[in-house]
Amino acid sequence: MLYLHEQNIRDAVSMKDMINAIDQSYEIYQSKQFTMPTRMQVTDDDNTLLLMPCITDDVIATKLVSSFPNNTTSPVLHGLVILNSQENGEIKALMDGSFITGFRTGAIGGSAVRHLARKDVSSIAVIGTGVQGLYQAIAACTERKVTDIYVFNRTAEKIPAYKHSLQQWIGHEIHIHTMDSAAAAIDKADVIITATTSKTPVLPDDKNLLKKKLIIGVGSFQPAMREFPRSLYQLADDIFIDTEDAITESGDISTPLAENWISGSSVKTMAHLITSNASIASQHDKTIVFKSTGMALFDTVTANLIYQRAIEKGIGTSLT
Amino acid sequence: MLYLHEQNIRDAVSMKDMINAIDQSYEIYQSKQFTMPTRMQVTDDDNTLLLMPCITDDVIATKLVSSFPNNTTSPVLHGLVILNSQENGEIKALMDGSFITGFRTGAIGGSAVRHLARKDVSSIAVIGTGVQGLYQAIAACTERKVTDIYVFNRTAEKIPAYKHSLQQWIGHEIHIHTMDSAAAAIDKADVIITATTSKTPVLPDDKNLLKKKLIIGVGSFQPAMREFPRSLYQLADDIFIDTEDAITESGDISTPLAENWISGSSVKTMAHLITSNASIASQHDKTIVFKSTGMALFDTVTANLIYQRAIEKGIGTSLT
Repeated sequence: MLYLHEQNIRDAVSMKDMINAIDQSYEIYQSKQFTMPTRMQVTDDDNTLLLMPCITDDVIATKLVSSFPNNTTSPVLHGLVILNSQENGEIKALMDGSFITGFRTGAIGGSAVRHLARKDVSSIAVIGTGVQGLYQAIAACTERKVTDIYVFNRTAEKIPAYKHSLQQWIGHEIHIHTMDSAAAAIDKADVIITATTSKTPVLPDDKNLLKKKLIIGVGSFQPAMREFPRSLYQLADDIFIDTEDAITESGDISTPLAENWISGSSVKTMAHLITSNASIASQHDKTIVFKSTGMALFDTVTANLIYQRAIEKGIGTSLT
Repeated sequence: MLYLHEQNIRDAVSMKDMINAIDQSYEIYQSKQFTMPTRMQVTDDDNTLLLMPCITDDVIATKLVSSFPNNTTSPVLHGLVILNSQENGEIKALMDGSFITGFRTGAIGGSAVRHLARKDVSSIAVIGTGVQGLYQAIAACTERKVTDIYVFNRTAEKIPAYKHSLQQWIGHEIHIHTMDSAAAAIDKADVIITATTSKTPVLPDDKNLLKKKLIIGVGSFQPAMREFPRSLYQLADDIFIDTEDAITESGDISTPLAENWISGSSVKTMAHLITSNASIASQHDKTIVFKSTGMALFDTVTANLIYQRAIEKGIGTSLT
């Protein structure tokens, strides 16, 4: 049994590897060759324990996440991924589930950039400079030759630490610009990424600032949460989701459907796009929305890749 | 985050400690101060992944067990217990869940011996010499001055290895007798323990061999499984269960109820007995049945004790 902490995982795989694994997950999703029951939620006052198992042809994985929203000194989320052998049920590996969650969510955004963003994208905007905003930026830079990153955060004091972390990953050659509003941040950006848990839109309701761009939302994961403004849905040529569950889980999809701003048939899965080889990254004139809520299948496929690479490279702590 | 393998756990706590923790679990069970949802089962052909969370005032614990019934070279069950802090959700410890399951099930039997067996018990019979039969014998010897253990197993070839393992725990002063039938094994025993997954009774349907004894069953955990014969229910003065779920989960309780061999009111919980201080270990003339199917609350309370003792003694591998 192998234990892999954050640095082990970073040594085992690159963001590019993770994005490839996300694309592989979409192929499995489309083939339906997996078992992924509705996650188990155990609530205790404000706190929640989440258990998210998934079985593929290759592996059995379970992600356990504790959510303590009132934490101040400790992170709100703590996670563990447990990999069991598909051959005999033995526990193969235990991994830092908090890091995998952030890293693979970055890779989900990276896959969207790969398949949906114009090839000549050079600038991105990040609204929300938490952990998710960090990995989203890293992933976007993995897929396109980004020269400028425009960042905005409601609490401006948090931006310097974000900038520091991001530079450690992507170096100092990419310019990171601290902006004082979301409108200013998205103005010059080709790709806009929102990574907040806001209950009201964090992007300005201004078509001129949104049109002909790729807008990626990874923040809203409950029906009461929304990051996108109404005008985005009037502009959108295509709306993609990472899992069918996003339709009910995220207010960025459920609200526009309930309000009839969009029709159900206009929302498509990335799995369908990728397996039909219909990449639209070469189209220059479209406004495209991608909304991710995540699923255990992503954790399963990425964690199995991490395990295999760790074994190949001799990384990790053996617990046997 | 602390990792504890089998030997760490054995160094951290004794069987007596575990039995005390089981008694503490019964007190929590009776007080209803815990959250224990129905376990999550994910099936994949013949194989099953089980997720069993439980939250008490002290800790959050999740037991993950994979069951691969067709395994030949690897054990059928593999397990992990994950302990999260009740304060902030941080993962405090990861432990060998297979060992905890066997060890705590032994302690459940040990608690039954403590509260239900005559004080002067000196001999026990064990039917079924697997892992469960091992820890049951150890636990019984912890609670009473046992001089003789009579063992029977359908596959006699497995008994020498059992004897060897048992002697490593309890030494060579207690006589272990290999018997060639269940009837011969139970004949001279004051306490009878069954630890098989049989679908038909493994004890002889003979009142003379059963009366005025304590009969402990830990094997049957599905309605189609039964270890006890019909005549036992005619003899039984008291029938105790470790959890209300045993009524539906085990054929040793569900079948006699369905067949009207016993009434629902005759089945009582150990939690009720223990919290009413009504130990019946001093009564010499009763036939008493105890049936265990286990529950996540036992894993939670025992794992938390193991963790606390391991911290006090500086045992385990730190994974931070």
